[in-house]
Amino acid sequence: MSALEKLLRPQSVAVVGASADPAKTSGRPIAYLLKHGFQGRIYPVNPKAAQIAGLRCYPDVNALPEAPDVAIVLLGTERTERAIRELASIGTGAAIVLGSGYSETGQAGIERQRQLRQAAGSMRILGPNTIGLVNLTDRIILSASGVLEMDALHGGAIGLVSQSGGILGALLSRASARHIGFSKLISTSNEVDLDLADFVDELADDPATRVIALYIETIRNPKAFLAAARKAMQAGKPIVAFKIGRSASGARAAASHTGALAGTDAMYDALFDEVGIVRARQFADLLDIPAALVSERELKGRRVAILTSTGGAGTLVADCLGVDGFELPAPGPDTGAALRALQTGDQAALDRNPIDVTLAGLQPELLRSAIRIVLDSEDYDALVVIVGSSAVAQPELMAGALRESLASSDKPVLAYISPHAPAAAQVLSGYGIPAFQAPESVSAALSAMWRVRSSAGLASAPRSGSIVPPVRCELKGALDEAQAKALFARFGIPGVREIIVHTEAQAVEAALSLGPNVVLKVLSADILHKSEVGGVAVGLDAQRIGPRLRQMQDEVHGHTGQRPEAFLVQEMVSGAAEVIVGVHQDPLGNALLIGMGGVVAELIRDTTLVLLPQDGSAISAAEVTAALRRLKTWPLLDGYRGRPRADVPALIDAVIRFSRMAQALGQQLVEAEINPLFVRPSGLGVCAADGIVILRDATP
Amino acid sequence: MSALEKLLRPQSVAVVGASADPAKTSGRPIAYLLKHGFQGRIYPVNPKAAQIAGLRCYPDVNALPEAPDVAIVLLGTERTERAIRELASIGTGAAIVLGSGYSETGQAGIERQRQLRQAAGSMRILGPNTIGLVNLTDRIILSASGVLEMDALHGGAIGLVSQSGGILGALLSRASARHIGFSKLISTSNEVDLDLADFVDELADDPATRVIALYIETIRNPKAFLAAARKAMQAGKPIVAFKIGRSASGARAAASHTGALAGTDAMYDALFDEVGIVRARQFADLLDIPAALVSERELKGRRVAILTSTGGAGTLVADCLGVDGFELPAPGPDTGAALRALQTGDQAALDRNPIDVTLAGLQPELLRSAIRIVLDSEDYDALVVIVGSSAVAQPELMAGALRESLASSDKPVLAYISPHAPAAAQVLSGYGIPAFQAPESVSAALSAMWRVRSSAGLASAPRSGSIVPPVRCELKGALDEAQAKALFARFGIPGVREIIVHTEAQAVEAALSLGPNVVLKVLSADILHKSEVGGVAVGLDAQRIGPRLRQMQDEVHGHTGQRPEAFLVQEMVSGAAEVIVGVHQDPLGNALLIGMGGVVAELIRDTTLVLLPQDGSAISAAEVTAALRRLKTWPLLDGYRGRPRADVPALIDAVIRFSRMAQALGQQLVEAEINPLFVRPSGLGVCAADGIVILRDATP
Repeated sequence: MSALEKLLRPQSVAVVGASADPAKTSGRPIAYLLKHGFQGRIYPVNPKAAQIAGLRCYPDVNALPEAPDVAIVLLGTERTERAIRELASIGTGAAIVLGSGYSETGQAGIERQRQLRQAAGSMRILGPNTIGLVNLTDRIILSASGVLEMDALHGGAIGLVSQSGGILGALLSRASARHIGFSKLISTSNEVDLDLADFVDELADDPATRVIALYIETIRNPKAFLAAARKAMQAGKPIVAFKIGRSASGARAAASHTGALAGTDAMYDALFDEVGIVRARQFADLLDIPAALVSERELKGRRVAILTSTGGAGTLVADCLGVDGFELPAPGPDTGAALRALQTGDQAALDRNPIDVTLAGLQPELLRSAIRIVLDSEDYDALVVIVGSSAVAQPELMAGALRESLASSDKPVLAYISPHAPAAAQVLSGYGIPAFQAPESVSAALSAMWRVRSSAGLASAPRSGSIVPPVRCELKGALDEAQAKALFARFGIPGVREIIVHTEAQAVEAALSLGPNVVLKVLSADILHKSEVGGVAVGLDAQRIGPRLRQMQDEVHGHTGQRPEAFLVQEMVSGAAEVIVGVHQDPLGNALLIGMGGVVAELIRDTTLVLLPQDGSAISAAEVTAALRRLKTWPLLDGYRGRPRADVPALIDAVIRFSRMAQALGQQLVEAEINPLFVRPSGLGVCAADGIVILRDATP
Repeated sequence: MSALEKLLRPQSVAVVGASADPAKTSGRPIAYLLKHGFQGRIYPVNPKAAQIAGLRCYPDVNALPEAPDVAIVLLGTERTERAIRELASIGTGAAIVLGSGYSETGQAGIERQRQLRQAAGSMRILGPNTIGLVNLTDRIILSASGVLEMDALHGGAIGLVSQSGGILGALLSRASARHIGFSKLISTSNEVDLDLADFVDELADDPATRVIALYIETIRNPKAFLAAARKAMQAGKPIVAFKIGRSASGARAAASHTGALAGTDAMYDALFDEVGIVRARQFADLLDIPAALVSERELKGRRVAILTSTGGAGTLVADCLGVDGFELPAPGPDTGAALRALQTGDQAALDRNPIDVTLAGLQPELLRSAIRIVLDSEDYDALVVIVGSSAVAQPELMAGALRESLASSDKPVLAYISPHAPAAAQVLSGYGIPAFQAPESVSAALSAMWRVRSSAGLASAPRSGSIVPPVRCELKGALDEAQAKALFARFGIPGVREIIVHTEAQAVEAALSLGPNVVLKVLSADILHKSEVGGVAVGLDAQRIGPRLRQMQDEVHGHTGQRPEAFLVQEMVSGAAEVIVGVHQDPLGNALLIGMGGVVAELIRDTTLVLLPQDGSAISAAEVTAALRRLKTWPLLDGYRGRPRADVPALIDAVIRFSRMAQALGQQLVEAEINPLFVRPSGLGVCAADGIVILRDATP
């Protein structure tokens, strides 16, 4: 039995710093262990008490009769480190450190946390600054959360890992009120040792857990997290994550557009996409979506039937589903005929969608029949039932009819509760029917089911591509444009035709050879944003290029104080699509940014991120294709409105080559970006028109 | 007293078709009138009963002792029309028709509804298919909604008009559970007579109503609606609207991009923007935002303080506020010093934001002081208090402290309730402190407060611009490109230099005169999307244009079956921004569409709509400027990253001229669009490069 298994299912628990007063935070853990029926051995540790809650109390850790599986440490920061050292020395499995005053408080706290880790040795630590964990499968409460005062804790199949203890308590409280059940709830908080990834990995093996919900502030170990998430997904357990820090600007002082476009939050999207994690967009969805997924009913298509006894709410839910792209077809001939055969009055509209059973709503048998017809119908992939005001007085009516119909079908069945009717929500949840108060949540839940289905296999699909051998570039620092493009060319990405010039005469000669019209650019490793200092001129011919070069020298000098000596004369490319390809280095991993390029890139923000394989291999053609198809401007590459189709195969090849470059240079690369990469019409290839490369001065 | 005033505050109510069984829908109105304390006269009408609920029952309408202020009609469709006729003939003020089977059911119902209107004569009708209305200010219930079974109805200052009776019931039920109070609730439903606009107008005059909430399916009379909304806003009553039909494709079979871009939902945004109506994006916001606005506390800036006793929830709310662009500054030196002076332990972080009063949360006096310091501080414009799990057991603690502090400040104060704590929400609402369960709603409410402040004066600002005299164009149907641009030129909008050609020789001559490079386009009123049939070629010189013309003839022939005889040779314009300007005719009004143009317009969808003034005047420069600044790509016009600033004054002038054209042509215009309108660098003006105009064949 691993330390982690022992932590979740201990036979013995020491509570160090336990108080005899259950109203105090330090009195809660023992009170909750007893209240919710812990069957193992409890050892209070407190030199000032002989007994706590009828249990023998020990003066210190060394006096304990055995090494406990788990110790809950409730001491102040000054005494915690010593207790941890003693617990480790007697062979305790894991310690849960509830005290705060560590890395969340600043520099001194970070140092204190480092010492805590050292004191623990090989003993595992949950926390510090955690509210602990709750194992509802086995009714083992290792927590001081005030929410546990409540009597009715609903066990279930949702495993929650939260990086905030307060949020754990809030979710447990809200779920219990709706009779949504958890298997385990763990607050990892400061994560000095055990983290998100450890518990995702553990829940993947936990037979009581069918869906994993995550409240994430930051992922400290993305590699381990991805591995654990993959394992859970392969075990058929979908993961739903709510991530904060969305508003934090991820912008570093980056030279490239890529740095500005690949914000922290977009990187989390890329990470979640990698294995098909469902992202909860609203906080409430972190309960609502798992509550729906836990039913394990599969959404096989996007056609939804809405059965309602109150017109307005059915239309409202239909509108939300429509916004999210679900179809709401009217019943086909057979289904329509079956529904019409039920009809008892001309007020019930049984042959449209929403299917209005205004009268049937009060006749359970009719309602049951309508539900069965819809679930049996080949016209629909899911059923949403609207629960109206009759549910306030008769919470069982609709719920009972639904429960009886569940067994005959494996289609998703969801309920939307229109009035305030908490009792109806509880009954429905108890029957395994997810019940929602927000119409948007119905749609979010069905969208999540669809994503789970679409992502099936993603976690187990091996990322293809051969490992790229490392390459060392002899240059360092910021490269100038010509050097950058030479580096791209070394990896097989062609550039536009261009000539480096230093004099007016050379410029005229270059214009004659590359004309009729050319582009003139200042060439300097010191100037990354050429157009901002007057360093770009387009549409020049041999006649005009000389004077324009002199003018550019003056303008750039005016902006930068330096008189440029080198220039690039480039062919003018027209009729090509402009794409941006960049590599973004991030604490979560390295990623490729692909999107609509050109000067508008940062305004339009039509870009997507794909994580680079961690094994150092190149990105695959399938991944590039999928990324391109996610772009709003994808049709521009695909022959939009009679325009010639762009050379997408050449684009895909160039992106793969770019990823090979990123992997080959590895740590040497700080930033690299091609913008724009011109994509010419089909068969005519691509060429890099501009680029940025920044290399580390020294590579370890 | 108007019929509408009498409808809301009747002295006498006849209930036609009343049942003696209060469990039946037709038994409810009298039961509810009595239950909630109606003080006026009630006349049941039913030939089969002598008494109902102790009231004398009348056999028919003509037997009534007086013409009632209001009649509630509960009959089936077949008997309703006759009852309406009789009620009208005795001088009844208004009838509320609860029965369904009218326009919501199809063609026969539409006809039945028309007859109902006719039968009513000058008597006003609410409905049919309505659930009625509820006047909570005066405790007058004229409704059959089952929700009214509940005992505790909370009066308040929110006036609700809903086009769905079921939604009215749902909102009343949900609000009552949270102790959020309404003044009036009206379900207009089919709106055969009285509609949304009538009741917005009435609520604008209602002293008990301070905020108006609207649940909208469709606005049947946009002119009256805008007038009523303006009146309400001028009376200082903000309007919050939730609109469904968002997913309905507003796309008509339109020739222009404008038709595809100006969907129905975007038109509602334009309508709401016209007077500053707050749009609720989530259904829950239709309660949450009015609940916040009703406090009438003004948000004067965007700096928000969060006071929390539970770290996680504070961070969560901060994240939501950050996403919506609010600032969360740490306390300044004075505020920080005052907070630090309160500090009792090193665990309470009182000098950051969220301001964490973990310990103070349990000490009411300390909490009160912290609230007062923040409300007095010049560092903040609003306060959000996080209510933690202690509120489950002690709902009064935080609420009491907040209530005492309210009077000393006029800043908005909102509460976020982290656990499930309905009692705390009720207490807070009762004290006038909006209390939210969703962190996103806190942000939505503050955003709404900010919009209300920013929109102040919008409703009363007269739309400037002189009336445009009508103009008649002698052409009809779809114009060809040259004709369209000639029409634009007639209103002062310049086009690109171009020459119509019919032969290769003419094309060569034109290329020599407009070159070095030119564009060749097929010219035909039958071909609206030239590029889709191979009818556009760019970058041609005099040498290549001849063969290219022949090739284009073949290609267009291949696509359309017609061999084109006329072509346009145009100058190539480079270095200009591409803008789209279109006029969109919509049931809600005519609007100008302005946005990023070119072939990507429909992919990027960076466009905005501005309603054309209903008085026939042109749009103003200020309105065009505001619209341009709403675009994501506005920086492209404004000198983005060292690019030359575009000629924005010329663009504004061209848009105004385009609006004059739309107003002058009036009903003759079906569609008109310039795309792209090239906007050259500052001082160089604009020119229309392509355009579509469709005129009505016959004008009435």
